[in-house]
Amino acid sequence: MADYTKMWSELGLDLKSHDALLSILGSAYGDIFLSQKNRPGGMKYFDFVMSEVHGLRIQELMEAKAQGRIVVGSYCVFVPEELILAVNGVSVGLCAGAEFNFEGAEEVLPRNTCALIKSAFGFKLGKVCPYLEACDVVVGENTCDGKKKAYEILGPMVKDLYVIDLHQTKSEMGRALLKEEYRRFATKLENVSGRKITPESLKKGIEIVNAKRAAVKRLAAIRAADPAPISGLDGLLVNQVFFYDDPIRFTDSVNKLCDELEDRVKKGMGVVAPGTTRVMVSGCPMAVPNWKLPMLIESSNAVIVGEESCVGERGTRWLTESKGDTVEDLLDTITERYFSIDCAVFTPNPSRIDYVKEMAKRLSAQGVIHYGLQFCQPYIMESGPVEKELEKSGIPTLRLETDYSQEDAGQLKTRIEAFVERLEKK
Amino acid sequence: MADYTKMWSELGLDLKSHDALLSILGSAYGDIFLSQKNRPGGMKYFDFVMSEVHGLRIQELMEAKAQGRIVVGSYCVFVPEELILAVNGVSVGLCAGAEFNFEGAEEVLPRNTCALIKSAFGFKLGKVCPYLEACDVVVGENTCDGKKKAYEILGPMVKDLYVIDLHQTKSEMGRALLKEEYRRFATKLENVSGRKITPESLKKGIEIVNAKRAAVKRLAAIRAADPAPISGLDGLLVNQVFFYDDPIRFTDSVNKLCDELEDRVKKGMGVVAPGTTRVMVSGCPMAVPNWKLPMLIESSNAVIVGEESCVGERGTRWLTESKGDTVEDLLDTITERYFSIDCAVFTPNPSRIDYVKEMAKRLSAQGVIHYGLQFCQPYIMESGPVEKELEKSGIPTLRLETDYSQEDAGQLKTRIEAFVERLEKK
Repeated sequence: MADYTKMWSELGLDLKSHDALLSILGSAYGDIFLSQKNRPGGMKYFDFVMSEVHGLRIQELMEAKAQGRIVVGSYCVFVPEELILAVNGVSVGLCAGAEFNFEGAEEVLPRNTCALIKSAFGFKLGKVCPYLEACDVVVGENTCDGKKKAYEILGPMVKDLYVIDLHQTKSEMGRALLKEEYRRFATKLENVSGRKITPESLKKGIEIVNAKRAAVKRLAAIRAADPAPISGLDGLLVNQVFFYDDPIRFTDSVNKLCDELEDRVKKGMGVVAPGTTRVMVSGCPMAVPNWKLPMLIESSNAVIVGEESCVGERGTRWLTESKGDTVEDLLDTITERYFSIDCAVFTPNPSRIDYVKEMAKRLSAQGVIHYGLQFCQPYIMESGPVEKELEKSGIPTLRLETDYSQEDAGQLKTRIEAFVERLEKK
Repeated sequence: MADYTKMWSELGLDLKSHDALLSILGSAYGDIFLSQKNRPGGMKYFDFVMSEVHGLRIQELMEAKAQGRIVVGSYCVFVPEELILAVNGVSVGLCAGAEFNFEGAEEVLPRNTCALIKSAFGFKLGKVCPYLEACDVVVGENTCDGKKKAYEILGPMVKDLYVIDLHQTKSEMGRALLKEEYRRFATKLENVSGRKITPESLKKGIEIVNAKRAAVKRLAAIRAADPAPISGLDGLLVNQVFFYDDPIRFTDSVNKLCDELEDRVKKGMGVVAPGTTRVMVSGCPMAVPNWKLPMLIESSNAVIVGEESCVGERGTRWLTESKGDTVEDLLDTITERYFSIDCAVFTPNPSRIDYVKEMAKRLSAQGVIHYGLQFCQPYIMESGPVEKELEKSGIPTLRLETDYSQEDAGQLKTRIEAFVERLEKK
């Protein structure tokens, strides 16, 4: 591995803490991912990406910046990468998946804040996220109360925090607000980058993001096969890398992986034995390196065949129509695409339940594990009605509420094993 | 006291639980309110109202219904009473201030839900809120995540749940959304009541609500005097009764109380000795019978001189302009009035901090106690920046986070006493 110390130092990272973090992450990655059996060869690319997630990829960002491109960071799927690409910017997801420096985070945030938000602050205050430090703009969004109010506190800590306002209902006024906000964001990007968004540049941005989504959708479809050709851990990893990697290279790598997996399916090969209990996960997003729940599930005689999550199908299932000759027309199609997202912050949110049912059927999932991040009010509030509706439709559902710590791992494992047994007996 | 058993039974109340509740409330009221010294004679009216809060007042609602008037219940100051009065309806605040049947509430809500929301469900599921049962329409609003998602669960439990969507930022689009929502609510009220809103009926509604607010503002102003002419408990009680009582009778009673208090001030009389430590409370609303914190504060050698809360000045400080000749014009002034409210759900929310400072100065409050209801993310998130800004301005601030239980009362009292000592030493 190359020596990135100089780069990290110039980004203002706390080198000692950062080294410690990388060492923990590297060893966790080895234990969780590299120890898996029958992994597809195509996962080697993602192993490499992960091994260089704070190295080569950051170097690429710095090179892009040196060439005059802007780096735009975000914490949510409501920030349109299409627009960022249209000003030749680089879009990156920001670090929020690890329990790092929560003591620091709790000095500025309430203790009853979800781990995802605490993690973002822990990384910032601990100076260990090179993505965040490389950003020209950090984009927040008014999704949940926790994030909405946390951005007020994050603002003074970062170079340029920009917040996109969001609707709360799927009304015509809500749609108009979203479009207005995307128009305002486009102007912001034009101002920061010094580049004008043209119909051509925007169409190109849409094309690149659509291709990336199409590749991940192709992967999602292949996972319907029995035996599962890829583990849930690896499936999630691809969805996580979606937010960090160069989009064209990522698309190419996912498609190569899919070629291999389709070949596996033809040959009846899988990562698990045929008939292994199949579950899907639904709920809160799992950012890198939040692999806790899938690891517990896949070490309990089950395989995860899909994720109904923002880091999963909720984040990628809609493509953006590339229809229209003006930026205004394209802003309409972009708005339409993002307006469809059925995050639990919206009320009411019936399409999410419908989609979970549809996914379970398509993927032949025998049960659904609902993942609620502790203190995430929208998803945890919605999980009751989701469970009720799924059970009514004959889909066994297990509701779990957890955080990033390992303290409850034993207890969760017991509940997951009991659930898998319930599914086996069906 | 009259026998209301038949009425309660017809409303579908669980008579046994309801009797138990009333008995506890009655005895708590005696202990907390009637035991106070030097109370103004004008509080007798409010004692009477409270003694008949589930009796005579409900009978009045039933009589109003028999005369064809509709009863509209709500849980938030964003539901315009002006519009309800314009269709000759009766507006009532709904029960959400007591720890009642939380076990029942936790069967349908996450445990990590604030006590106010749990209370609303506990009352509904336990069948002990005659206000809720008397309602023709229950109005929710998309303020915080907790309430927004809880209304989805409450919907099937009540006769007619109607939800008002709200903005999240004070933008032009936010203002347009609010107006559109109030227009939609006006139509809803017209449909349910069978009455048309006219400029005259709406002006009359505005006039009645403004008079009520003006009376409470008059009371708030008088509390600037030293010695305080009225206790914080009684001041809060008036603000609580604001939501339940007949508005015209209430206004008259508050003004009579103010006459008496002004006379007290002239004579230098108070409920406490001159120089008693003065604090104000800022934060989450306290619905009847949530008197826990004021009771702890006022039994700790301090007097509360004001409430920066939705049950307090945040709920009443703005009047509605009665300007314009059409319903559309008046909807504009109503929107303008409610758009000013600086609830912590908005981002950013700087006017709230400015107002807390202004209030502290006007009321000669020596310190601010910030009341955060556990799991209320907006206020608890905002409390950090509020404390920081107030302390910077030389206003000592104590941040408390609590719920409706009495378990932490001893610990809170210790912290409050230490805070009062800090203020005494200044």
